[in-house]
Amino acid sequence: MEIKIGMLGLGTVGTGVYQLFQEKRKIYQRELGCGLTIAKIAVAHLDKERKVQIPEGILTDNAQEIIEDPGIQVVIELIGGGKGLEHDLAILKTRKHLITADKLLIATRGDELFQAAAKNNVNLMFGASVGGSIPVVRWLRDGLRADKIKRLMAIANGTTNFMLAAIAILSYDTALSLAISEGYAEPDPTFDVEGLDTAYKLAILARLAFRQRVTFEHIYPVEGITALEPADFTYANRWGYVIKLIAWAEDRDGKLDLRVHPMLIPEEHPLAQIVGANNGFYVEGEAIGEQTLGPGKGAGPQPTASTVIADLLQVCQDIKNGQVSAYQINALEKVETYPVTKIVSRYFLRLTLANEAGALEEVANILKDFGISISAFDQPETTNPEAEVALITWPTEDLNMSKASARFQESPMVKKAYPSIRILPKEEKGEEHGK
Amino acid sequence: MEIKIGMLGLGTVGTGVYQLFQEKRKIYQRELGCGLTIAKIAVAHLDKERKVQIPEGILTDNAQEIIEDPGIQVVIELIGGGKGLEHDLAILKTRKHLITADKLLIATRGDELFQAAAKNNVNLMFGASVGGSIPVVRWLRDGLRADKIKRLMAIANGTTNFMLAAIAILSYDTALSLAISEGYAEPDPTFDVEGLDTAYKLAILARLAFRQRVTFEHIYPVEGITALEPADFTYANRWGYVIKLIAWAEDRDGKLDLRVHPMLIPEEHPLAQIVGANNGFYVEGEAIGEQTLGPGKGAGPQPTASTVIADLLQVCQDIKNGQVSAYQINALEKVETYPVTKIVSRYFLRLTLANEAGALEEVANILKDFGISISAFDQPETTNPEAEVALITWPTEDLNMSKASARFQESPMVKKAYPSIRILPKEEKGEEHGK
Repeated sequence: MEIKIGMLGLGTVGTGVYQLFQEKRKIYQRELGCGLTIAKIAVAHLDKERKVQIPEGILTDNAQEIIEDPGIQVVIELIGGGKGLEHDLAILKTRKHLITADKLLIATRGDELFQAAAKNNVNLMFGASVGGSIPVVRWLRDGLRADKIKRLMAIANGTTNFMLAAIAILSYDTALSLAISEGYAEPDPTFDVEGLDTAYKLAILARLAFRQRVTFEHIYPVEGITALEPADFTYANRWGYVIKLIAWAEDRDGKLDLRVHPMLIPEEHPLAQIVGANNGFYVEGEAIGEQTLGPGKGAGPQPTASTVIADLLQVCQDIKNGQVSAYQINALEKVETYPVTKIVSRYFLRLTLANEAGALEEVANILKDFGISISAFDQPETTNPEAEVALITWPTEDLNMSKASARFQESPMVKKAYPSIRILPKEEKGEEHGK
Repeated sequence: MEIKIGMLGLGTVGTGVYQLFQEKRKIYQRELGCGLTIAKIAVAHLDKERKVQIPEGILTDNAQEIIEDPGIQVVIELIGGGKGLEHDLAILKTRKHLITADKLLIATRGDELFQAAAKNNVNLMFGASVGGSIPVVRWLRDGLRADKIKRLMAIANGTTNFMLAAIAILSYDTALSLAISEGYAEPDPTFDVEGLDTAYKLAILARLAFRQRVTFEHIYPVEGITALEPADFTYANRWGYVIKLIAWAEDRDGKLDLRVHPMLIPEEHPLAQIVGANNGFYVEGEAIGEQTLGPGKGAGPQPTASTVIADLLQVCQDIKNGQVSAYQINALEKVETYPVTKIVSRYFLRLTLANEAGALEEVANILKDFGISISAFDQPETTNPEAEVALITWPTEDLNMSKASARFQESPMVKKAYPSIRILPKEEKGEEHGK
C-alpha cells in the first residue's frame, strides 16, 4: 500500500516539512507498515530558488492538479495567513484528509471547515496551529477529554515573550529592534505585539478545551504589549510578580471568559518560568488539578514540521485502517461569553502625579468613588516635580476600573495614567478572582 | 450502540475512575455518540466498605465473569503491582481491549503483553502508567513519532521530588516522616526512595521514545536518594545547581544510555522548576529542540483517573469505528545498551578529610591517578579536626570515578567519601557530556 500526499505551499514551514519527511521517511514507513510519497507540491512561483532539491515532476503552480488528483488522499496546506480557505474547502469536498498549520483559518473559519470535514468524513488536523512542538492541541483534543477544564492560561506567542524580557530592562523600541534582528519579529510586528496572534491561538485552544464553537470574535479584550515600560516591570518585580502576555480562557458557570492582555503573574507560577522565545500552556482541570506544558518552541520550521508530520502519520494510519479518528465537530456547543464588564481582578496602576499636596488624596478619592480599595502602594523618593506612583488595588469589576481610568484622564492632579494591568493574585484561594 | 466496560480492581485509583466516569458519563456519551456502561467490577472482597455506591449486580469477586463475558468489549485493569498479568493476558486473548495503569507490568512484561494485543488485534493502553495527568505517554507515542529523540530526562516520582526539598533543609529521616505524614510516601518507601518506581517508568518512556523493546532490566545504574544529606544541597546550591532524582535516557549512536540517579542540574534548567510532589518530563529532539511537559500531578486517584478515561474514550471511539489505533508493537527494535563504564560526566564529590597537612593533596593525587581534574573546590573554614570538602570534577568516565572512589575508601587521609553525584553541566555545548 502506498499513500500519496499533496502539499500546498513551500515556504519556510513547507520546506521544513519536506526536509523532515524526506529525512525520516523510511522510519515512518516502517512504523506505519505502508509506503508514503509526497506526490505533488503546489507553489506560487515555479522558478523561485529553493533551499531544498525537489525531484522533477513534483512541483506545480496549479493547486487544482492536487485537488483533482484522485490518487492523492491527504493534503498538507501550508499557504498560511488564511489564504488557503478556498483550496481547503475544495480538498475536503473531494474527500481528502486535510492538515493545516493556519491558526487564522481555524480561528475564524473553523466551523465551516469542521463541518465540511465531518460531512465528507475526513480528518481535519491542525496540531501545528498552536504551540509548535508543544502537544497542546493533541492534549486538549484527546488527552483531557475525560476531565472538565476550569481555566486555561497560555503564553502562546514567542516573539512577545522574548520582547518582554528586553522591555523590562531597555525599552519597547529597543526590544522590538532586538527581536527583529534576532529573527523573532517581522518588520511589521503588529500581528504579534498587539496580541492578535495570541488571540487567534486562544480561539483554537478554547474551542478544544471547552468544546464550544469559539472563534476569534469571541475574544475580548485583546490588548498587546506596546504600552509597557521598564518601570512596570520594576514595580511588578518588587511586589513579586512578572509581566507576561496571557491568553486567558475560563468557564464561569457555562459562560466563557476569553481575553488576551498583559498580566502580572506571581513569580512562582509555572508560566512565570516560561522565558525567552518559548511558549507555555497552563490548565486547571477538575480532576487533574494544575498542569503545565512547556517551555518549548512555539514556532519555527522544524518544531512546526514535527507536529505537522505527527498529524500526517495519524491520518495515514487512519487511511490504512479506513477510518477517521480525529476531532468530531458534532459535540460542539454554541458559545456564551461572560460579560467583560463583570470580570473582577486586582489591578496594577502606574500614574504620574503633579508633585503637590493632595495629588495622592485625589487618586485615592477617585478610586474610592468607584468602590476600589488600595492594597499596596509604592512611590520612589523624588525631587522631580512630577512624581510617579504605583499601586495595586483590591479586586474590582472591570467596569469600575474603566470608569476610574477615565476620571484619571480628566484630573489635573494626574499628569499621566498608564494603562492598568490585571493581576493574577498570589493566593488565589483567599479571594474570588474574576467572579 | 452501547459499549460495555469491565473493571478489575476497585482500590484508590479504581474508585477515582468509577467516580469520574459516573460524574461525566453523559458528556462522554454525547461526544462519542454512543452509550457507555461499566457493566461489571471484579474485587477481592465483596463485603469491603467502599467510598462509592455501586449498584446491585455490578460487583463480583470472580474476574472470570468479566473475562468470559462476550458482551464486555473493554476492560480497565487497576489491580496494580504486577498482579494483574494473568488476567490481562486472558483479557487480550478473548479479544477485549485492555487499559492498565500498572507501570510494573508494562516495564517488565511489556513485550508479552504488546504481542498478545497485536496478535488479537486489540488496543493495549497504558497512558496512566507514567506521569499521572501529564500526557507524556500519549506525546511520546503519537506526538513525537515524526521526530528523532536524542535525550529524555524525567522527574517521574513525586514522592522523592517532595522529599528532596525537605532533605535539603532537614535530613533524610525527617523528610521521610514528613512525606509519610503528608500521604506522599508509603510506610515502606523502598519502591520510591531507591529509584525503582522511577526506573519502571523510565523503561516505559524509553520504549516509546526510542521505539525499542526496553524493559526494567536495561536500566543501570538505579540509585535512590537515601544517601543524600543537606550539605550536598548547600554546596550544589552555592555552585548554581539543584539536586533532582533524574531518569535519563539517551540515544548514543543507536545504543541506549538508561539510568536513574540523583543529579546536580543547573538551576535554570526546566526540570529544576519542577517542585513539590510534581512530575516533569524533558525531551531533546532533532526537530523540536528542547521541550518540557510539567509541572503536573504525576499520581493521585483523580489525575490518574482522567488519563485512564482518556485512554478509555480513545478505545471506545475505536470500537465504534471498528479499528485499533494505538501503539503498534511491530516496529520495535531490540535494545542495545551503552556501556555504563564509558559514560562521561562531571561529578560532585563530598569528602570528610583528616584535618592535617597533605590530606587535600592526597585527594588531588588519587583523582590525578585516574586522569580526573578538579574544576571547582569548596572547603568551609573549620576548627573541626575532621574537615569537609566538596569539589566538582571535569568530565571523566564512570569507570575512572568508580576506581577513584574505591581508593578514597582505602585512604587513611579520607575519613569518609560520600557517594559521588553526576552533574548536568550548565553550558553543555562547551563539553562533550556523556560521550
